[in-house]
Amino acid sequence: MARTWAIAGVDLHLELTGTRVRAALESALREAVRTGRLAAGTRLPSSRTLAVAEGWLTARSGSGTRVAARPAVPTPSAVPSPLALRPAHGHDLRAGSPDVSMFPRTAWTAAARRALQTAPPQALAYGHTCGLPELRTALAGYLARARGVHADPERIVVCAGFAQALGLLSRVLRSRGATTVAVEAYGHPQHAEIIAAEGLRARPVPVDAHGAVIGTPADALLLTPAHQFPLGVTLAAHRRTEAVRWAHETGGLVIEDDYDGEFRYDRQPVGALQALAPEHVVYAGTASKSLAPGLRLAWLVLPAHLLEEVTEAKRLADGHTSTLDQLTLAELVTRGDYDRQIRRCRLAYRRRRDRLTAALHREVPHVRVAGVSAGLHALLTLPRGTDEQDLVTRAARRGLALEALTTYRRPSEADTPEPYGPALVVGYATPPPHAYTAALARLCATLADRR
Amino acid sequence: MARTWAIAGVDLHLELTGTRVRAALESALREAVRTGRLAAGTRLPSSRTLAVAEGWLTARSGSGTRVAARPAVPTPSAVPSPLALRPAHGHDLRAGSPDVSMFPRTAWTAAARRALQTAPPQALAYGHTCGLPELRTALAGYLARARGVHADPERIVVCAGFAQALGLLSRVLRSRGATTVAVEAYGHPQHAEIIAAEGLRARPVPVDAHGAVIGTPADALLLTPAHQFPLGVTLAAHRRTEAVRWAHETGGLVIEDDYDGEFRYDRQPVGALQALAPEHVVYAGTASKSLAPGLRLAWLVLPAHLLEEVTEAKRLADGHTSTLDQLTLAELVTRGDYDRQIRRCRLAYRRRRDRLTAALHREVPHVRVAGVSAGLHALLTLPRGTDEQDLVTRAARRGLALEALTTYRRPSEADTPEPYGPALVVGYATPPPHAYTAALARLCATLADRR
Repeated sequence: MARTWAIAGVDLHLELTGTRVRAALESALREAVRTGRLAAGTRLPSSRTLAVAEGWLTARSGSGTRVAARPAVPTPSAVPSPLALRPAHGHDLRAGSPDVSMFPRTAWTAAARRALQTAPPQALAYGHTCGLPELRTALAGYLARARGVHADPERIVVCAGFAQALGLLSRVLRSRGATTVAVEAYGHPQHAEIIAAEGLRARPVPVDAHGAVIGTPADALLLTPAHQFPLGVTLAAHRRTEAVRWAHETGGLVIEDDYDGEFRYDRQPVGALQALAPEHVVYAGTASKSLAPGLRLAWLVLPAHLLEEVTEAKRLADGHTSTLDQLTLAELVTRGDYDRQIRRCRLAYRRRRDRLTAALHREVPHVRVAGVSAGLHALLTLPRGTDEQDLVTRAARRGLALEALTTYRRPSEADTPEPYGPALVVGYATPPPHAYTAALARLCATLADRR
Repeated sequence: MARTWAIAGVDLHLELTGTRVRAALESALREAVRTGRLAAGTRLPSSRTLAVAEGWLTARSGSGTRVAARPAVPTPSAVPSPLALRPAHGHDLRAGSPDVSMFPRTAWTAAARRALQTAPPQALAYGHTCGLPELRTALAGYLARARGVHADPERIVVCAGFAQALGLLSRVLRSRGATTVAVEAYGHPQHAEIIAAEGLRARPVPVDAHGAVIGTPADALLLTPAHQFPLGVTLAAHRRTEAVRWAHETGGLVIEDDYDGEFRYDRQPVGALQALAPEHVVYAGTASKSLAPGLRLAWLVLPAHLLEEVTEAKRLADGHTSTLDQLTLAELVTRGDYDRQIRRCRLAYRRRRDRLTAALHREVPHVRVAGVSAGLHALLTLPRGTDEQDLVTRAARRGLALEALTTYRRPSEADTPEPYGPALVVGYATPPPHAYTAALARLCATLADRR
């Protein structure tokens, strides 16, 4: 299907195949710049704008008419506002972001003031590459008690978000001669991009009801054991044992992406896989879900044999992570504010989860809800034969941004049949509290309409 | 000369050749880990510790006795404190860091509070890859008026320090097929390392009294035009013209590292080279000297043709730079606090500079002082035949850390004769205000002793 989209007064021709609307948008934009049709100075739309445009184009893909969004871009250098493309009264139930309105502004400001008042001047000079000792000590204590991580402050490297952490690890693996990182067949598209950007191949491995299937030949294995993203499965005990055995036998490295491990609602907490084999598993945690993604604060707990090389990669990447943010986070963790924030968020997200499942059960009982014992998102499995993309399109018409499971699929080389049926990934943390009821109503209406 | 140094109870054998003490230390440490003599979990000394150890070892290199510093490292995982190796009553006149005691804590805290109180929740979610629009707008205004930069907010990418900025640029250049970056024959050792880590060759070009000599074949040219680091020369007008012509004719990219451009004392400000050819010169600025290195805040102003690729590299590197730090800096710049801070620092550094030159003129008139019309460091040229390293050693005995010019030398391929005589690079911003008098006294005593 071909569509046209306009930016800065230039029409871009898009070949829309399946759900790859955003890829088509990006490719058309690059091509237009390359061929000079778009002035070289033109500011390209942000990833978020593209996502909104994607929903917008998709929403109109059934209409058969030419789409020309023509966002209000008066000069080549202006940034098209996401709002210019966003449907009126838009709601967003896509996954990946927490409820940023829960960021503890007062506690953060107070901690930042205290930290800055008491820090010696030297704390503001070039700092420790691995992170402030105070923060690493505080994190080691927190990770041990909250996630069962085998954590030593000397093994921690504070990073600018998981994206940087994965990039540094990939770079070190590559310099050691690695070629392949096994990744779960569903996951965050950016992670595979980061791995590829460092010259490694991301090889998808199947995920079943017990989590990732272990055994694919690779130099490293990137897992989300506590709560698979986005399927929501917890890595089963026997799979954990297999992962550790795989690492022991092959010398492969397991990378544990514990992106939402703190947010478990129903069962006993699932401890970190890292504790089973601290010399074979890298643990990666983040403040992106517990505080805010904008902070860009994450941490690695490393096997001894990787410490020197990851530190060196971090030194060359940016020296170290922002000292003031680190001082503040250390203060929050040390004073117990961080634990309080986690508890507060866990309660709020659990309530949202309960409202989501109750509404779906009541309004659209044919939709199966999975992966909701933890985290900030749910997997909504749809009756066989449902057209995922059609549903996303119809939701967009109702002013609701949704994401099909296919968005997160990493096609395997063997091109095995799709084990996960038509489904939606619903992130229930994103809408602000006052908009949650309306967002749920639109979701249910869209799904009910489908029958 | 061979020396032994002990860490974690293991003696390391060092071959000290000329001034490469730190390189020998680092190499011995790596070797010990590689061969298993140091437990793989051993925390290696920080770069700062090594620097102090370097001074310490150098200070004792004339004694002919075995050196075994044996810092107090009770377990393999403990971090040896720099203080354990630092000479008693130590002073530091090495270059590269500002006076961090001048960081405007009150203004920063107030700006951070205001910024966080007024920012919409969405500001804390994943942000713009290039940086907050508010900050880019504020920086564009500041750079235009303070440095004459041809600055458009849409061409700015906020980075985690110049280290990251140079890494992103190198990565983009490499992906375009570049192989070589010309660098000044004297400069920050880390910059060449960053270039090399991205697979490019750093090729030194000579620096004379007019600044860098233009014309070496390369894909890019990294310059410090306002105040060459560390020689202190300003790039002459005809050299600026040559640099722009070189870029036009060869398609090469000029990278302008304006690391201390705000701190000019005697003459009219030297504007940014970038303004002469904004499509051929990348301008790089930083808050490391004006506020604090620990913030890790820097900014690139990019030619249009690089914008998309640098943004993509930044997206994969860490998504974006810490939002809270960006919000706060935007607030400081917008309210004029940043300009006030620059003026305050300029005045303080100018006074320090005047005290340095007066003391040297009075106490050691045989030492020629250069490069002091700007910046935070001076080049002290010593009489022909002076042994730089011997002077550094004797300073260390007096409890003063100094750095020889040789530390910053990037040996050229042609191995041309050394044009810059024995000299010291003296950073006069580093000592806290109360220690400056004592630091100067030790410097003069060391230099006087030499006669």
